[in-house]
Amino acid sequence: MSLCGQSWLGWRRGTAAGNSFQATDPAAGLPLEPVFHGATLAEADAAAELAGRASMPYARLAPVRRAEFLRAAADAIEALGAPLLERARRETGLTEARLTGERARTCAQLRMFAAITAEGSWVDARIDHGDPRRQPPKPDLRSLRAPIGPVLVFSPANFPLAYSVAGGDTASALAAGNPVITVAHYAHPGTAEFVAGAVIQAAQKTGMPEGVFSMLLASDGSVGERLVRDPRIKAGAFTGSFAGGAALHRLAQSRPDPIPFFAEMGSLNPVFLFPGALAERGPALAETLAQSVLLAAGQFCTSPGLLLVPEGEAGDHWIELLVRHLAAAPAGVMLHAGIWRNYVRQLDERARAPQLQCRLRSGQPEPGRAPAAVFETSAAAFLAHPEWQHEIFGPAFLIVRYSTPAQLHEIAAALAGSLTAALWAAAAEQSDIRELAEALAWRAGRLIYNGVPTGLEVGPATVHGGPWPAASDPRFTSVGGRALERFTRLAAWQDFPDSLLPEELQEANPRQISRLVDGRCMGGE
Amino acid sequence: MSLCGQSWLGWRRGTAAGNSFQATDPAAGLPLEPVFHGATLAEADAAAELAGRASMPYARLAPVRRAEFLRAAADAIEALGAPLLERARRETGLTEARLTGERARTCAQLRMFAAITAEGSWVDARIDHGDPRRQPPKPDLRSLRAPIGPVLVFSPANFPLAYSVAGGDTASALAAGNPVITVAHYAHPGTAEFVAGAVIQAAQKTGMPEGVFSMLLASDGSVGERLVRDPRIKAGAFTGSFAGGAALHRLAQSRPDPIPFFAEMGSLNPVFLFPGALAERGPALAETLAQSVLLAAGQFCTSPGLLLVPEGEAGDHWIELLVRHLAAAPAGVMLHAGIWRNYVRQLDERARAPQLQCRLRSGQPEPGRAPAAVFETSAAAFLAHPEWQHEIFGPAFLIVRYSTPAQLHEIAAALAGSLTAALWAAAAEQSDIRELAEALAWRAGRLIYNGVPTGLEVGPATVHGGPWPAASDPRFTSVGGRALERFTRLAAWQDFPDSLLPEELQEANPRQISRLVDGRCMGGE
Repeated sequence: MSLCGQSWLGWRRGTAAGNSFQATDPAAGLPLEPVFHGATLAEADAAAELAGRASMPYARLAPVRRAEFLRAAADAIEALGAPLLERARRETGLTEARLTGERARTCAQLRMFAAITAEGSWVDARIDHGDPRRQPPKPDLRSLRAPIGPVLVFSPANFPLAYSVAGGDTASALAAGNPVITVAHYAHPGTAEFVAGAVIQAAQKTGMPEGVFSMLLASDGSVGERLVRDPRIKAGAFTGSFAGGAALHRLAQSRPDPIPFFAEMGSLNPVFLFPGALAERGPALAETLAQSVLLAAGQFCTSPGLLLVPEGEAGDHWIELLVRHLAAAPAGVMLHAGIWRNYVRQLDERARAPQLQCRLRSGQPEPGRAPAAVFETSAAAFLAHPEWQHEIFGPAFLIVRYSTPAQLHEIAAALAGSLTAALWAAAAEQSDIRELAEALAWRAGRLIYNGVPTGLEVGPATVHGGPWPAASDPRFTSVGGRALERFTRLAAWQDFPDSLLPEELQEANPRQISRLVDGRCMGGE
Repeated sequence: MSLCGQSWLGWRRGTAAGNSFQATDPAAGLPLEPVFHGATLAEADAAAELAGRASMPYARLAPVRRAEFLRAAADAIEALGAPLLERARRETGLTEARLTGERARTCAQLRMFAAITAEGSWVDARIDHGDPRRQPPKPDLRSLRAPIGPVLVFSPANFPLAYSVAGGDTASALAAGNPVITVAHYAHPGTAEFVAGAVIQAAQKTGMPEGVFSMLLASDGSVGERLVRDPRIKAGAFTGSFAGGAALHRLAQSRPDPIPFFAEMGSLNPVFLFPGALAERGPALAETLAQSVLLAAGQFCTSPGLLLVPEGEAGDHWIELLVRHLAAAPAGVMLHAGIWRNYVRQLDERARAPQLQCRLRSGQPEPGRAPAAVFETSAAAFLAHPEWQHEIFGPAFLIVRYSTPAQLHEIAAALAGSLTAALWAAAAEQSDIRELAEALAWRAGRLIYNGVPTGLEVGPATVHGGPWPAASDPRFTSVGGRALERFTRLAAWQDFPDSLLPEELQEANPRQISRLVDGRCMGGE
């Protein structure tokens, strides 16, 4: 399969009329063939029209059909083989091992959502039977989560597969019964074109309606902004920077008809280290943390960015050990030049802050490469500088030294929303961390006990989100079984003839799903 | 119990320093004693501070304690007896029978939410067990819906009890574990003060933390706008006009940290009448529809505002019958002068539209009273005038005549979001309405077969919401068992010691709730 550099508008390819651009190999700093063509605004409109038309026919398909499509997409992505991984590697600088793992996760997600939609209980079907003898007569009322309509998906640079064209947002939106238009990230257009081709192939093979999926290439924000405003688009999802996510969220809310827009914008991911854990297994923790920070050059939304370490000698030595681990590692390749420039600029800013002590920083880094950096400060200074809570995307973090539990509580209370918060404690310290854990649960979507925030497990219970600015709405998650709920609308039927009801609400329960019947959970299977 | 005209800030009363205002008896057009004092901005801040402080202690209480509070509030409202109903009648012009029914619904809602929170399965607890033998080891992941924090509740004029101070928004927010600040409607401050006193009494009696509930009086929008922007407020709920709801929703989304804000803004509630139903039971339907339109002078968010009637003689006769029913009814009292002025102005505007035929309209109506009004037009003219989709709040509706099923589909496709849509058909017409029902399910939160939209049944399956502009987010409902979900955040715990987990997630399931364990629904009880 070769790349032609054009978008997918349903079954058709886009033209070459839009802005042309090329991907860059960040390791070499050199442009990659071929030339790509951004979708024109007219092409964006055409994709929206196709998605709008596909909405009802796609929603009407039996869920097992949608599951077939998602499984076929996973198969087709795997069938792309080595050329996909090689292209992704050249476009992102990520290692083959990482990309192999990410492809596995991408396909596992597609198959997990296929299983969820095929099983069917996720729609939260509810039946309140009527009672004609009551005065006034009680109507029969039945409701469920139905598809919301065309979903617009924006990809980040750092997950060219698992959060991109056929990533979790796309997979969950399709599983929930919605057409998807995905705007590819300009830094990995070739990877996007490969994956989009696989999804289109799967859609055609499994008989999906045209418009169920489109992929638009874009070298700037104009196509995405146009579509966020398009009345045919009914929901959006974004993974990426705070600035980008917040701007698109605001745009979606300023439409004449605001739409749900879920933005996952990364976070600080604080790690709280307790004295007992430090004493018990300090060296192992230093190694574990260094590995977590260095993973993919720190370019994870769950990368640890804040570390709370006890004051005193034990903490001093531990930090020295940690810094040695980090200093020994080679500088990783960053995803693209823009991220690298931001990283260097932010480190320069921090280096100039008088109350931040620089514990690790190389001189002028090699272009495109990110050596790890560590700053340190006191609890009091951290509390006085909320601007240090801004995430630095890359292998950098801030150590805050504390001396009392009260300081930890003060810091926890001052933290903005985060995707995760980790507590590292010894078994004997469990009662000491109870209150802190409780406070942190208000500020982070996922609390971790004695583990690193990177390496998110994907399952029915997964929460990947959190209070603003980690995500735009703390009631939803972009990863895991609940991710479908973002792309639904509640719909109820009152006193309807059984044959006119969706199968999930028919009296005989032909889909054998779990339902809430007259307030009681009635199991499926 | 007498009225003092001041707000409740936790256990304390507000001062008399704010703007003073009085309620008006809309039937007599005369002011009612006593003088009320709007909360000052400083008092609004104080309420937010108290709510913020109450957040964690209230969330920490066992759900059965929250249930006790809600049940005590219902008991205390009932104990207010006749003076509450009398005050509400004088402030709103609603009948005693209607208010007696509304009080029953209010208390039933409080008790329903008490039962839901006490039972506990609503938190959607999920457990994905870990597997230390897997490579890499699979972590143990557990998650649920947790309280979101202080909720701000705005009341409408038309439900002084069931959607007001202790209405469904307040009850569901409290049941979900959140403190509530409610901004009373200026048209029924005495009713608000009575009910707030009952809630405060219940909170104190059941040992709730101060700040769990505050009630702010307001004669204008300044206090509400201040609180929508307050960083301590974590979610909002509004029931009322489109203009008010849309403005507050936008304000909430323009905060530095946007918050979930659920606005229920009313709708057109179309009724589709099919020829078979007309032939089979036309006279009964005319009477039923007239009753629904006249209920509380048409001042329901579910009042029918659009009626699709077949062209031809049968339809003509039926409309004459319907108009006779409406003309024979006395003009109802409207809730307040502002609503009455709007009603008269909107009827004047419609009367001037050349393509609208006026089928029923009295001359200059008596001040404060709303005679029914009926306009009629063709399907083509309706499609050409989207401005006629704007809801007229009161006993007025628009009849659109159709001649073909295709016209009905065109109209359905052109409709904005609505709370309800009703289909009136004969049994033999069921196959004819299938596609129309399917199309309408995308545009309305609740589809009704052969029934009127007024008289919403409250239960686990209820959906009261819909696509914009019916509500600000189609994924939620403001009434029924799912209403709690609006006021939550997802929270997950990874590899946590069992004793540090919320009870709902502990391995032994001490609360005996239904949970999703390793992807399988495991029943409670």
